[in-house]
Amino acid sequence: MPPPTPHLLIDAEIAERNHQRLLDYLREHGLCLRAHTKTHKIKKLGELQAGPMSVGLTVAKVGEADVMATVCDDLLLAYPIVDNARAERVAALANQVNIRVAVDSKLAIQTLSDAAGARAVPPEIGILVDMDVGYGRTGVQTPADSLELAQFVDATQHVRLDGLFIYPGHVRGTLDEQTTTLTVVDAKVQQATGLWLEHGLEPAIVSSGSTPSAYHSHLVRAVTEIRPGTYIYNDMNTVRGGYCTIGDCAARLVCTVVSNAVPGQVVIDAGSKTLTMDPSIDGPNAGFGAIVEYPEARIARLSEEHGQVDITNCPNAPQLGERVHVIPNHICPCSNLQNEVWWLDRTVNDEPQRIPVDARGALV
Amino acid sequence: MPPPTPHLLIDAEIAERNHQRLLDYLREHGLCLRAHTKTHKIKKLGELQAGPMSVGLTVAKVGEADVMATVCDDLLLAYPIVDNARAERVAALANQVNIRVAVDSKLAIQTLSDAAGARAVPPEIGILVDMDVGYGRTGVQTPADSLELAQFVDATQHVRLDGLFIYPGHVRGTLDEQTTTLTVVDAKVQQATGLWLEHGLEPAIVSSGSTPSAYHSHLVRAVTEIRPGTYIYNDMNTVRGGYCTIGDCAARLVCTVVSNAVPGQVVIDAGSKTLTMDPSIDGPNAGFGAIVEYPEARIARLSEEHGQVDITNCPNAPQLGERVHVIPNHICPCSNLQNEVWWLDRTVNDEPQRIPVDARGALV
Repeated sequence: MPPPTPHLLIDAEIAERNHQRLLDYLREHGLCLRAHTKTHKIKKLGELQAGPMSVGLTVAKVGEADVMATVCDDLLLAYPIVDNARAERVAALANQVNIRVAVDSKLAIQTLSDAAGARAVPPEIGILVDMDVGYGRTGVQTPADSLELAQFVDATQHVRLDGLFIYPGHVRGTLDEQTTTLTVVDAKVQQATGLWLEHGLEPAIVSSGSTPSAYHSHLVRAVTEIRPGTYIYNDMNTVRGGYCTIGDCAARLVCTVVSNAVPGQVVIDAGSKTLTMDPSIDGPNAGFGAIVEYPEARIARLSEEHGQVDITNCPNAPQLGERVHVIPNHICPCSNLQNEVWWLDRTVNDEPQRIPVDARGALV
Repeated sequence: MPPPTPHLLIDAEIAERNHQRLLDYLREHGLCLRAHTKTHKIKKLGELQAGPMSVGLTVAKVGEADVMATVCDDLLLAYPIVDNARAERVAALANQVNIRVAVDSKLAIQTLSDAAGARAVPPEIGILVDMDVGYGRTGVQTPADSLELAQFVDATQHVRLDGLFIYPGHVRGTLDEQTTTLTVVDAKVQQATGLWLEHGLEPAIVSSGSTPSAYHSHLVRAVTEIRPGTYIYNDMNTVRGGYCTIGDCAARLVCTVVSNAVPGQVVIDAGSKTLTMDPSIDGPNAGFGAIVEYPEARIARLSEEHGQVDITNCPNAPQLGERVHVIPNHICPCSNLQNEVWWLDRTVNDEPQRIPVDARGALV
């Protein structure tokens, strides 16, 4: 019997093709990969991403680091650690693998240093200084501020200055649009790395991120490694952004039509606890994902366990009890709602195999 | 050491007070409770809700039913079951406890009947006929359609006609606004139950739901039991809807301020994988929840693990490393993202105790 619905089906061939395509780009431009594993949270995919062209893996949470440390010995925690609870776990893990943390405050640096120093054998925790390049989420605001933090790291025990961290999350759109924005990013990064070198500090790593900008990473000349996450699965937001096609979406939620009692509508067994309320980059009219078999259908409204699908524009209506494949707007939070995925590798087996989402629910 | 952040803190006294307030209303109007456990998914709270005035518990998923069957022997699956995988699990559970299912199709009735019939000792599965009273999600459209399904149940083996199911999810607002809408609902329900009685079928149960309309349930005269879920915790959407106050919110996410590098903003360690992107009923400007200690702050933008808080209107800025309490827009999907909650019952202990979210992630 096929797995019950809703379940997340991963097409291994598509995921591997997405990964190979990125590796080809990286080879062409002499860049390294430090894939963000928060998209899938699966060790098996972490192993793939820790292969050729990789310098390690990226995680958002210490719980994710604990999991990925079993498949990779060089991890970047792309998250500011300012509290003792997290810092102690990071320090413990740093006794086992190489851990680097992206930070934007002296408090974070001091907290990590103290936690490392409190270990029986104090580890050295690598630090990347997070500089805001326009997204406005985290990161010190100026190259001079980045230098100040770099110097503070340099003067602090048990932490090691590894380089600079940027997140160009605001960089989207066509090559022309991205080039305009990335030129500004490039200038700011050049200024920062120049300042560091002037003061005898080497930004050995310049780490950048994001799937939408992944294929333009070389436009920021100092970048040494990139941290895309979504690229491995893709979703409707990467499709609608023009970065891939529906055929490049490796992760699909298999759902059942559970009601057709309301005219012009069917209900699927995936609501906000499966698809999430993450919006479409095309706005609310685009709905909460796309049904592969019914491109004219619109997932118009979600309750927690119901997806109300407007089928008024569909030439053929989905039938009660029918299974459909849904590509969500944003795959990352959907993965995090699944205890397991069903891994379909047709080169090995026609039936999907259940594998756990190892780091699901790692909140800390 | 207090639990690491983000974590969900439950104030037991507030939850119990919310529950008692509802029981007082039910006593006054001679109604019964069948609380929806999807909000909390916790056995301990299911036990409380299965106490006085209760005729059983409501669940959305079979996995939730499996969990709640350990604390209650009368469960309503408020979800259409049309596939064999779910129906077989329902039938197995119906050998142990009294299971009722709300359905809106002959396929659902037949599928459940077949699954029950296939058991060594075929159980009887209770059926509530789901009639749409205006929300437009599931449910047969007319009283005549409800009669047709009721007659089909009556003529089918291994299923038992228990009554009528409605979900007045569209009923919101003030008493006046609700009275207007509920008068229409009442008329439709009277028509349906009248038709059933004319044809010798008794709607012994008329089950209604929703937290916003809970205290006006008696305005639909035939209703015998109600299924509110959110009332036990409350959230910013029940506060903003005018159904309770901030002081009635029993569930709060404890978060840490992890960055203040961007002027006019702090970042908390709760993003869409903690708070969810569920919108505020007051629109996007209301943000993604409220910070109890900083009422002027606005949780303006969420990434997966970052909550960007606009503090430009705050007289005092939250400090880096500080812990704050966040009430989310919609608590139900937030509970579902937590493996455990921290249960604070000051009458017993000043420290919160960890209890598992037993049915978290029950997708099927």
